[in-house]
Amino acid sequence: MDHLALLAAFAREGPQGPATRQHRLYACLRWAILGGKIAEGARLPSTRALAEELGMARNSVLYAYEHLAAEGFLVGTRHGTVVVRLGLSPLHGRGTGTAHDAQRPLAPPLARRAAPLQGEQNDTNHLLPLWPGTPALNEFPLAAWRRCMERAWRQTEVPQLGYAPGQGHLRLREAIAQYLRVSRGVRCEAAQVFISDGSQGSLDLCARMLADGGDTAWIENPGYPGARAAFQAADLRLVPIAVDSEGLAPRTVDWHRTPPKLIYITPSHQYPLGAMMSLERRLALLRQAREAGAWLVEDDYDSEFRSDGIPLSAVQGLDAHAPVVYVGTFSKTLFPALRLGFTVVPATLSTAWLGAIATGGMRGRLAEQIALADFIESGQFTLHLRRMRQLYAQRREALQAALKRHLQGVVTVSGGAGGMHLSARLEAPVSDVAVSRAARVQGLGLRPLSPFCLPGTDGSRYNGFVLGYAGMPVERADGLGRHMARVIAEVSRSG
Amino acid sequence: MDHLALLAAFAREGPQGPATRQHRLYACLRWAILGGKIAEGARLPSTRALAEELGMARNSVLYAYEHLAAEGFLVGTRHGTVVVRLGLSPLHGRGTGTAHDAQRPLAPPLARRAAPLQGEQNDTNHLLPLWPGTPALNEFPLAAWRRCMERAWRQTEVPQLGYAPGQGHLRLREAIAQYLRVSRGVRCEAAQVFISDGSQGSLDLCARMLADGGDTAWIENPGYPGARAAFQAADLRLVPIAVDSEGLAPRTVDWHRTPPKLIYITPSHQYPLGAMMSLERRLALLRQAREAGAWLVEDDYDSEFRSDGIPLSAVQGLDAHAPVVYVGTFSKTLFPALRLGFTVVPATLSTAWLGAIATGGMRGRLAEQIALADFIESGQFTLHLRRMRQLYAQRREALQAALKRHLQGVVTVSGGAGGMHLSARLEAPVSDVAVSRAARVQGLGLRPLSPFCLPGTDGSRYNGFVLGYAGMPVERADGLGRHMARVIAEVSRSG
Repeated sequence: MDHLALLAAFAREGPQGPATRQHRLYACLRWAILGGKIAEGARLPSTRALAEELGMARNSVLYAYEHLAAEGFLVGTRHGTVVVRLGLSPLHGRGTGTAHDAQRPLAPPLARRAAPLQGEQNDTNHLLPLWPGTPALNEFPLAAWRRCMERAWRQTEVPQLGYAPGQGHLRLREAIAQYLRVSRGVRCEAAQVFISDGSQGSLDLCARMLADGGDTAWIENPGYPGARAAFQAADLRLVPIAVDSEGLAPRTVDWHRTPPKLIYITPSHQYPLGAMMSLERRLALLRQAREAGAWLVEDDYDSEFRSDGIPLSAVQGLDAHAPVVYVGTFSKTLFPALRLGFTVVPATLSTAWLGAIATGGMRGRLAEQIALADFIESGQFTLHLRRMRQLYAQRREALQAALKRHLQGVVTVSGGAGGMHLSARLEAPVSDVAVSRAARVQGLGLRPLSPFCLPGTDGSRYNGFVLGYAGMPVERADGLGRHMARVIAEVSRSG
Repeated sequence: MDHLALLAAFAREGPQGPATRQHRLYACLRWAILGGKIAEGARLPSTRALAEELGMARNSVLYAYEHLAAEGFLVGTRHGTVVVRLGLSPLHGRGTGTAHDAQRPLAPPLARRAAPLQGEQNDTNHLLPLWPGTPALNEFPLAAWRRCMERAWRQTEVPQLGYAPGQGHLRLREAIAQYLRVSRGVRCEAAQVFISDGSQGSLDLCARMLADGGDTAWIENPGYPGARAAFQAADLRLVPIAVDSEGLAPRTVDWHRTPPKLIYITPSHQYPLGAMMSLERRLALLRQAREAGAWLVEDDYDSEFRSDGIPLSAVQGLDAHAPVVYVGTFSKTLFPALRLGFTVVPATLSTAWLGAIATGGMRGRLAEQIALADFIESGQFTLHLRRMRQLYAQRREALQAALKRHLQGVVTVSGGAGGMHLSARLEAPVSDVAVSRAARVQGLGLRPLSPFCLPGTDGSRYNGFVLGYAGMPVERADGLGRHMARVIAEVSRSG
């Protein structure tokens, strides 16, 4: 065994990072054994001899040998320390670029259901102007929030570092229940509120709690891709239901042919088209869902930012026994990195829901929950919402004016009754996906509308863009409108 | 319409909480309409008349009427404001205790797969002495952690409040990769590390990424209930595999009859029996898994706290192309409420994994990740681990001595090579579940071993307890041992 060559090889290829010499020797010898550089059955030099050759302390070599023996790589015999015959084949760790490598079997493939959503792979889109989904971060009262967090951590005591009950901090659930009762007409007590790490977590849980694999889930088409992903991951059978000016519009034939177990709705401000579900439609849906034995999953996205300042009551609150699970998030009302949201279940289900999330749920993060409860109770939450409602109304108007000014006849705008986004359908025969690509290259975030349709359905009717203006300063609207017009024109000409 | 009676009813049953008078009036009228107390088609008094009768400002009544009209409950006609005919049936919101209530259909049931794990419903067990799973919270450097958190929040800038890439903070991934390479022999770069909210989240993800619904997952029997729950929720077919003194012990017939797609192992300190998987078994398992095209999910639970201080290298590191996904958590090494863990995937899978978690993953919580990276880089993490290793060794010895002193011949103890728990098999013919119940009533946490076996398998061979001593001060060992002996004796006599 060429020790020096071995150590040199180790310096090149062995595990990196600061470690004691004895640890590096241990790691080097182990790597050599696994890679077949030291043969099985071979006898290693005595600790004294190796220490002398490498210029190390004998104890260091002893450490390495003992470590390897404890793991099972070496064994002491009366002839000395010997490498255990482990039956290592040439397949273990060689990577020498020989024919052996070609024979090395590849790792198994990922599951079919692991395939990512179409077009969801780009992680930086949300940073582009007009890309929807992110609230006005600059306007968030970060200093006030920081104070709430510091106070919360100072109050945190040792027992609060352990596993908490999965339902979430009581004070926060009470604050949320109160807010929902007063502002959204949701009928709930704290016992019905379950804290989550955001909409995605809530929808994942709903998909698995309310329906079994293979059950039918109705999704709005076009609709929120996050819901689609959650339901697909839970092996639900997705059935796209059309959306009209009053939101989800199921036909009689839908109830008969593909009766649902779960119906996903965004009734306050349909995502992405922006329709508000009428009271008549809400009541009809409740009645039909009940008859069909189906669950409504109400995602109350964008309910807080209506232009006229009049928030609509939730569907959940229209009936004392509504088969509705209500989902909300603080990602849009506070900030996305917070990762806190909630699920409100019917009172009769609280106990069962609690039991089912026993190994999951929000079993920690007490400091953040205390901070958020504080932020809500002190009135800072509703104050912030009020400010944002006014700000978003201004930004919405500015964008609508810019679109009118620069894209009259090119796009038709809808969804302007509130919220954080507008829907803009292309009148011109140019692909929204193509325009989106071109825009991205130029630093403009025009999220295409057609991919919001379930693959296999006719996305051509929904050729356009979903435009988010929450983070768009009013003075930028005109320039963005002009830029958007320019990109569409360029792609139209070249296409 | 008896207005005063209505307001009185509202005061009793309407939505609670502070709200303006005009909002309460709106809510009251809405509740009355939904509940049929105001008939459809009925004409409401003029705003002036109602205001006078209720002693409110006319604008307040106008607010309520406009709100209800915007929602669709009221409509203005030339005869005045009229309640819209919505076709509300007696099923909506009455709750008067009449025969109608009995006809009201119940909410649909929860999904079959929502059924909670047997015996997992009690949320307070983890507070009882000797209940396993919680590290020594009193020993956690809370003040130092608080400083890291405050520093992290002071450094947090506005863009960090938005959606972050799902893989997690780069600095933290680098710190984790470094730690794993040096201390656990895991072969990885930061690109292969994915931050999660703990083991449960990591296992959920593995179950859905590595296997499709209906695929076979091998679990250790007895084994970790959290893994079982994650795999069940992902609709995997669970096959229990026996555990011997070297850990998971699959027989040839297992590979042939029920070939796995996914194999879950806790090789450092099997949970719950405590066996350490020998090197020979690790290599064999790697070889057989590769031949079967299966994934190994290595949960490196308890690798940090071996008595002899020599951590075993991970299975993942034994082979450059191991089909292993390595899962770890900071719940036990730092504190459970932190909710941060990680998944390490083979390099060839990083891109695919990243794409698949696009709508999930750790898309926020940057301050905590920065704080944790800081805590690791500054050496505080390894310092804490070293202190805990010594502390747990002392506590382990104390408990082992107490068990020997008070329960010789009553229980046989194993799993004492390291970690945070011991396994104690009952020699006496008394039910571990019965003893556990009696102990709980007396404030002692003896977690029964038999429920760790998959239902339908023979739990009688594993009649005993899983005892956690991480939070047990040395001086309490003797008393706890004595108490345990007493409870067992009591239940034996009565049973």
